[in-house]
Amino acid sequence: MQQRTIRTIALLGAVGLFVVGNTTFAGEATAAGELAHGSAFAATFAWLAILLMAAKISALVERFGQPPVLGELLVGVLLGNMALLGINFFEGAKTNLYLPFLAEFGVVILLFQIGLESNLQKMRHVGVRAFLVASVGVIAPFVLGTYIVGPWLMPGLTSSAYLFLGAALTATSVGITARVFRDLGTSRSPEAQIVLGAAVIDDVMGLVILAIVSAIATIGAVSAGIVTWIFAKAVLFVVGSIVAGIILAPRFGRLFSRIHTGVGMKISLALSFGLVFAYLADLIGLAPIVGAFAAGLVLDPVHFRHFDEPTFVDDVRSALRGIDKATTQKIHAAVDHHADHHVEDLIDKLGLVFVPLFFVMTGMAVKVETLFNMPVLVVALAITVVAFVGKYVAGFVAGPVNKRIVGFGMVPRGEVGLIFAAAGKALGVVNDQVFSVVVIMVIFTTLLTPPILTALIRRQTAI
Amino acid sequence: MQQRTIRTIALLGAVGLFVVGNTTFAGEATAAGELAHGSAFAATFAWLAILLMAAKISALVERFGQPPVLGELLVGVLLGNMALLGINFFEGAKTNLYLPFLAEFGVVILLFQIGLESNLQKMRHVGVRAFLVASVGVIAPFVLGTYIVGPWLMPGLTSSAYLFLGAALTATSVGITARVFRDLGTSRSPEAQIVLGAAVIDDVMGLVILAIVSAIATIGAVSAGIVTWIFAKAVLFVVGSIVAGIILAPRFGRLFSRIHTGVGMKISLALSFGLVFAYLADLIGLAPIVGAFAAGLVLDPVHFRHFDEPTFVDDVRSALRGIDKATTQKIHAAVDHHADHHVEDLIDKLGLVFVPLFFVMTGMAVKVETLFNMPVLVVALAITVVAFVGKYVAGFVAGPVNKRIVGFGMVPRGEVGLIFAAAGKALGVVNDQVFSVVVIMVIFTTLLTPPILTALIRRQTAI
Repeated sequence: MQQRTIRTIALLGAVGLFVVGNTTFAGEATAAGELAHGSAFAATFAWLAILLMAAKISALVERFGQPPVLGELLVGVLLGNMALLGINFFEGAKTNLYLPFLAEFGVVILLFQIGLESNLQKMRHVGVRAFLVASVGVIAPFVLGTYIVGPWLMPGLTSSAYLFLGAALTATSVGITARVFRDLGTSRSPEAQIVLGAAVIDDVMGLVILAIVSAIATIGAVSAGIVTWIFAKAVLFVVGSIVAGIILAPRFGRLFSRIHTGVGMKISLALSFGLVFAYLADLIGLAPIVGAFAAGLVLDPVHFRHFDEPTFVDDVRSALRGIDKATTQKIHAAVDHHADHHVEDLIDKLGLVFVPLFFVMTGMAVKVETLFNMPVLVVALAITVVAFVGKYVAGFVAGPVNKRIVGFGMVPRGEVGLIFAAAGKALGVVNDQVFSVVVIMVIFTTLLTPPILTALIRRQTAI
Repeated sequence: MQQRTIRTIALLGAVGLFVVGNTTFAGEATAAGELAHGSAFAATFAWLAILLMAAKISALVERFGQPPVLGELLVGVLLGNMALLGINFFEGAKTNLYLPFLAEFGVVILLFQIGLESNLQKMRHVGVRAFLVASVGVIAPFVLGTYIVGPWLMPGLTSSAYLFLGAALTATSVGITARVFRDLGTSRSPEAQIVLGAAVIDDVMGLVILAIVSAIATIGAVSAGIVTWIFAKAVLFVVGSIVAGIILAPRFGRLFSRIHTGVGMKISLALSFGLVFAYLADLIGLAPIVGAFAAGLVLDPVHFRHFDEPTFVDDVRSALRGIDKATTQKIHAAVDHHADHHVEDLIDKLGLVFVPLFFVMTGMAVKVETLFNMPVLVVALAITVVAFVGKYVAGFVAGPVNKRIVGFGMVPRGEVGLIFAAAGKALGVVNDQVFSVVVIMVIFTTLLTPPILTALIRRQTAI
C-alpha cells in the first residue's frame, strides 16, 4: 500500500516535470515579468530546484557504498545526455545564464570549507612532501603524454599538439578528491592534506606550463623572463595571501565585531574573506578555488571569538543554570564543539545547496557521444591509463602515508584538463581527435576516482 | 592605541578597495581564465563580498534605533550614487550580470522564510480582513492618483498616463515591510499576518489592473472576458498552490526521507519547494515572491519529522544519558525548540547572505539625481503623500488590531511601482516627468516606511 503511494507520487512528479518541461520555462510572461527579468530568474529557480533534487535523489548510490559525489556526477551525466534519447528538456539547464555561476560559487564554497577544516600548521608539516608529489604528478604525465604515448598512439601530429596533450594531463582538479575526503570525514588526514597542498602547487605549475606551451604554439619559443615572471607572480600570490591572511584575519575579526556581533556578520565576514581571496587568485591567473582554499586555511575559529555563539548554545547554557557542576561540564562539552565550529557550520549550510550543483553541472558537461567513436575511444582509454599512472607514481614520493590514496587522489582532471585542451583548440593546434581524447580522459578520471578512492580510504580506516 | 589600530585597518581596507577598484575587476585574464568565464565569475565574487560587508557595516544604524533594512537601503543608495561624486567604481555592480539574480534569489528566500514563520491557520483567520485591506489599499490610491491628484498636479497629460500613475500607486512591495516585522521579531503578530495576506491579494489585483490599463492604453478598450480570465488564473494559482501544497508536502516529506534523511536532503527539499512555487507564480504572471510565500505557508515543521535532527541536538541528547530526569527535561526543552525550527534555521543561513544583497541592490537602483529637479520634486512629494494616505486609510478596515501598523505596512511600493511605470513607458504613454515622479514616490515610500513602522511597532510592544 505504502509502496503504491510512493509509486503514484513518483509518477505524478514525473508527469509534472514533463508538463513543466513542455512549457519551456518561458511561460506567458506579462509586461511586468519581462521588465523585471522575472521569467529568466524564475526559470533558474526551477532549474535549481530540479538539479538540487536530482542531486539528492542520486544519494541513493550511498546504498551501494559509493560516495554522494559519484551519484551527483552520474545523475548529471544522465540528465546532460537525455537529448540522445530524444528528451531535450534538460538542455535548457546547459544554456541557462546563471547556473554556471552558481556552480562555480559552489566549488569555491567547497574549497573554502576544506580550507577551514585544514590546519595551516599541519599543512606546513606536509609542505615538502606536497611539493614533491605535485612535481612528480606534473612531470610524469607530461613526459609520458608529450614524448612517449602521444606520438606512439597518434602519430603524425604537430609537436604543439603533443605538448597540449601532455599539458592537459598535468593538472589536478582537486574538487572531486576533496569532496570524497569530506564525504568520508577524512579531510584532516595526512593523505588529504598532502593531496590538497599538492593540488594548490600543481595549479601554480599548471599555470606556468599553460603559458609556456601557449607561447611555444604561437611564437615557437618563449623567453625565460616571462616564465619566471608568471611563476614568481603565482608563488607570490599563494605565499602573500597566506601571510596577509594571518595578519589581517584576527584584526578584521576584532574590527567588525565592534560593528556587530551577530551571526549575520559572522557568516558575511568569513564568506567575504573567502570570496575576496577567490577573486584575487583569479586576478593573478590562478583558479578562484585556490584563493578560496588559501582563505579557509588562514581563517581559524579563534578569529571569530568576538562574535555571538549560536543561539542553541546560549539556550542550553542558560538551561544549565542551577544544575550541578558534573552535569554542566558534560553538557558543555557537547555544545562547545558546536560553538567552536560555528563558522564552518554556517558556511556548510551554503555548501549544502551550491556544492551538489557544481558536481551535477560537471556531470552534465560530459558528452557521452564522444565515447561512440571506437578508434578514438581506444586511444582515449590508453591516455586515461597514462593519466592514472602519471599521478599514481606521484604517490610514491608522499613519504610515510598511504601512497595509493595520495596517488589516486591526484588523478581527477575535471574542468582543468578541459581548459588546457580548449586553449589548444582555440590556438588551432589541438584537432578534434586530440580534443575528444582529452574529454574522454577527463570523464574517466573524474568518474572512476571517487569509487576507487572510497574503497582505498575505507580499507585503510578498517585496518 | 586600539582606536589607532582600527583606523589604520580601516584606511588599509579603503586603500585596498580602491586598488582593487582601479584594476576594473577584469584582471589580466589568462587563456584559462577566459575560457572558464573565470573573470566574470570572480568579479561577482568580489562584488558579493563588497556588498555583503557594506550591508553588515550599515547595521550601525541599529545604534540609532533603526532597523537593519534601512541601513542596507541607505548604504545601497550611497554606493549607487557615488558616481555623482566622481567615483565610478561601484557602477560595476549595476552592470554585473549575476548580482540581480542573486538579489532576486534573496527576496525569494525572504518571503519563503516569512511564509515558514506564518501559519496557514492564523492566515485564514485574518483572510477576510486582509482582503478588505488589500481592496481599499488598491482602490483608494488608484482613484486618488488617476482621477484627482494626477490631473490636478500634472494637467494636460493623456488619460492613459494618469491611469498608469494610479496603477503604480496600487501595488505593495511587501519585502520591506516583511523585513521590518522580521527584524523586530513580530512576523507572527496579527498586524503582520494581515499585511502579508493583503500584499498577496494586492499582487493579484495589481496584475489584473496592469493588464487592464495596458489594454486600455494600447487598444483603447478591454474585454470583460480577458479581465475575468487573468483574475481567475491568479486566484486559481494562489488557492491551487496552497491546496496542492497541503496535499503534497507531507507525502514528499515521507517519500524523500526514504531516500535520505540527512540535513542536505532536508534543506534541498524545503528550498526546492519554495523555488518551484516561485517559478510557478512567475509562469502565471505573478511575482515569484508570491509563490515563495505560499510555499512557506503550507510547509510545516511536521513535514520534516522523518529527517535527521540537527547534530547538536543529537550530541546534547546523548550527553544527557544517565543524568536525572528533571535536568534532562529542562535541557530537552532548550534543544527541542531548535530541533522543531531546524528547517527555518537552515533556510535562515541562506537568507543571511542573499537577503541583504536584495536590499543593497534595491538601494543602488535609486537615482538620487531625480531629486534635483525642483518642480518634479514638488509634484513627487505630493504624489508620495497620496501614496501614504491611500494605504494608510486601508488600515482602517483591518479590524481590532493596530490599524496604523497595518496601514503603514502597506506603504512601500519598491520595485513593483517601478514595474508599472516602466510598463507604461514601454507602451509610450508615460512620459519622463511621470516616470520620475513615480521613481521618487518609490524612493520615499521605501526609505520612510522602515523607520516609521519600527517606531509604531516599538511603541505598541512597549505598552
